[in-house]
Amino acid sequence: MYLYSNILGTFVFNQNFQIREKILFKDSELKKNFELLENGIILEIEEEFLKKFKTIVNLRKNPDEKALEKVFFVLEENKEDFYKKNLYLTRQQIKSSITTDLLIIQASCSIEEINKATNLLVKRLREWYSYDLPEVEEKIEDHKHFVELILRKSRHDLVKDFDVKNSMGSDLGKHDSDSILELAKAVLNLIKEKEAKEKYLESLMKKECPNITEVAGFLIGAKLISIAGSLRNLIMMPSSTIQLLGAEKALFRHMLNKNSKPPKHGEIINHPLLQRVNRADKGKAARALSDKILLAAKVDFFKGQFIGVKLRKELEAKFP
Amino acid sequence: MYLYSNILGTFVFNQNFQIREKILFKDSELKKNFELLENGIILEIEEEFLKKFKTIVNLRKNPDEKALEKVFFVLEENKEDFYKKNLYLTRQQIKSSITTDLLIIQASCSIEEINKATNLLVKRLREWYSYDLPEVEEKIEDHKHFVELILRKSRHDLVKDFDVKNSMGSDLGKHDSDSILELAKAVLNLIKEKEAKEKYLESLMKKECPNITEVAGFLIGAKLISIAGSLRNLIMMPSSTIQLLGAEKALFRHMLNKNSKPPKHGEIINHPLLQRVNRADKGKAARALSDKILLAAKVDFFKGQFIGVKLRKELEAKFP
Repeated sequence: MYLYSNILGTFVFNQNFQIREKILFKDSELKKNFELLENGIILEIEEEFLKKFKTIVNLRKNPDEKALEKVFFVLEENKEDFYKKNLYLTRQQIKSSITTDLLIIQASCSIEEINKATNLLVKRLREWYSYDLPEVEEKIEDHKHFVELILRKSRHDLVKDFDVKNSMGSDLGKHDSDSILELAKAVLNLIKEKEAKEKYLESLMKKECPNITEVAGFLIGAKLISIAGSLRNLIMMPSSTIQLLGAEKALFRHMLNKNSKPPKHGEIINHPLLQRVNRADKGKAARALSDKILLAAKVDFFKGQFIGVKLRKELEAKFP
Repeated sequence: MYLYSNILGTFVFNQNFQIREKILFKDSELKKNFELLENGIILEIEEEFLKKFKTIVNLRKNPDEKALEKVFFVLEENKEDFYKKNLYLTRQQIKSSITTDLLIIQASCSIEEINKATNLLVKRLREWYSYDLPEVEEKIEDHKHFVELILRKSRHDLVKDFDVKNSMGSDLGKHDSDSILELAKAVLNLIKEKEAKEKYLESLMKKECPNITEVAGFLIGAKLISIAGSLRNLIMMPSSTIQLLGAEKALFRHMLNKNSKPPKHGEIINHPLLQRVNRADKGKAARALSDKILLAAKVDFFKGQFIGVKLRKELEAKFP
């Protein structure tokens, strides 16, 4: 038996070079654009192809590299044509492979990375700013609030507002403190960009995965899709896997070393339900939540009706 | 012999509680503000102190925790005063400890961190953008150029300019591509902030360390000060240490495992001289360069004359 694939489909030949089986590609684009799949043409190509194919097999038994190379392109005179059509098909496939869940993954990852970048720079900003006025820096925990405050108010006003006497800071000159405020502006800009990305992600999720969004929240839902790789991958998983998505490290640690406990939850730990229930119920709640998320994801993938609120209420009833 | 320190200084007593030696703090601030160092007061305190001190030592031999605690504050009635003055002194020390080389270190670290943040986000931006128009993304290597281009030109113009036929990108809708351009703006903002910080660092370095700047360049010079911890620390190092600053990892790897080669250069590898000389001369050039950097740093620390150009020319003569 011989197996051979080309742009038309995959063919199985027997010892006598008779076609035993064929699967033809059914791409409507291909049909429309090249009309290659019209029966006449296929048959013609197949006959031609069969002739060449015999040569290939004979050559294999008695190989002559140069000749082989030539024959591999089934119809030598159509070689360029085949190349072009194959390229076109591949382009179409790549084009249509960019689905909304890829955008969701990009947005979700970008939020995480902007967060990382912000934390890196805000740490530097706080250390640097505390040379100038440490008493204000240490009193404001929220990063956005801190950055906005030092950008809005002058040092003089801050000293008054925070009732700072004998500051330990060294009251840097204008040139130096301007540079610090510049960094603060960059940090604020990143924080705002993160907020914008969250809005964008929320709108994508509400449109594409309304049920997941209702049950898990758009951030957690998007993160799960991102870890799974696609919405399709997510719905293929058992709910016990969804429960642990994002806790791979802890899981493998447990598998290698039985002394460490198995993780009870991955990314879903950030869900308000798991934040609320007491410690003893956490495992149970995590199981119930990932069940509902899987259900919601399936409905979203197959474009079913909106049952998110029902699912959410069932969960809330179970863990009041 | 007994050793005792308080806000006035450090005192050494012999077995008979006689002061054998004393070092008094000479802080002029202290003198001006409290006039504690006037001879009269010191003597008075010393006498008083001596009396209490005997009690402390006697108590040590026959300890009674409660009593000890009280006596430790030399003059019980001045306890609060001592606390305040100590606090004031500490504040002053912290205040005056913020020197220009600390600002240099902050600026140098912030440049590195902004770089890290930019790379993180630009990688995401490029991946995301290539869903839209991969043919343009892959052609422009320089990040700033890429970001500015996609912000300035419309997709339509880019397709024309780059002669893109049959793009593999999927031509995202406005809502999606707007979100990508928003991220591009955030990246451009970070790139510009890095440039501003470099200008700021250059002005600091030229003012504070003109000789280092002339010999090593402001970026490498600042990085060396940053790794050493301060300009003072840097000039205390032998030049062979300066040569390896920034290559600690490779050095320790070599020390633990003799099979790996010792590093020849750390941060200074980025210096144009070391980039220029051929491989065989690299070690020699690194030695010569770190010698000159140490010399320049010493002159800068002790506020000597500007000899940077002379040092640089000597180096250039040695490695033409």
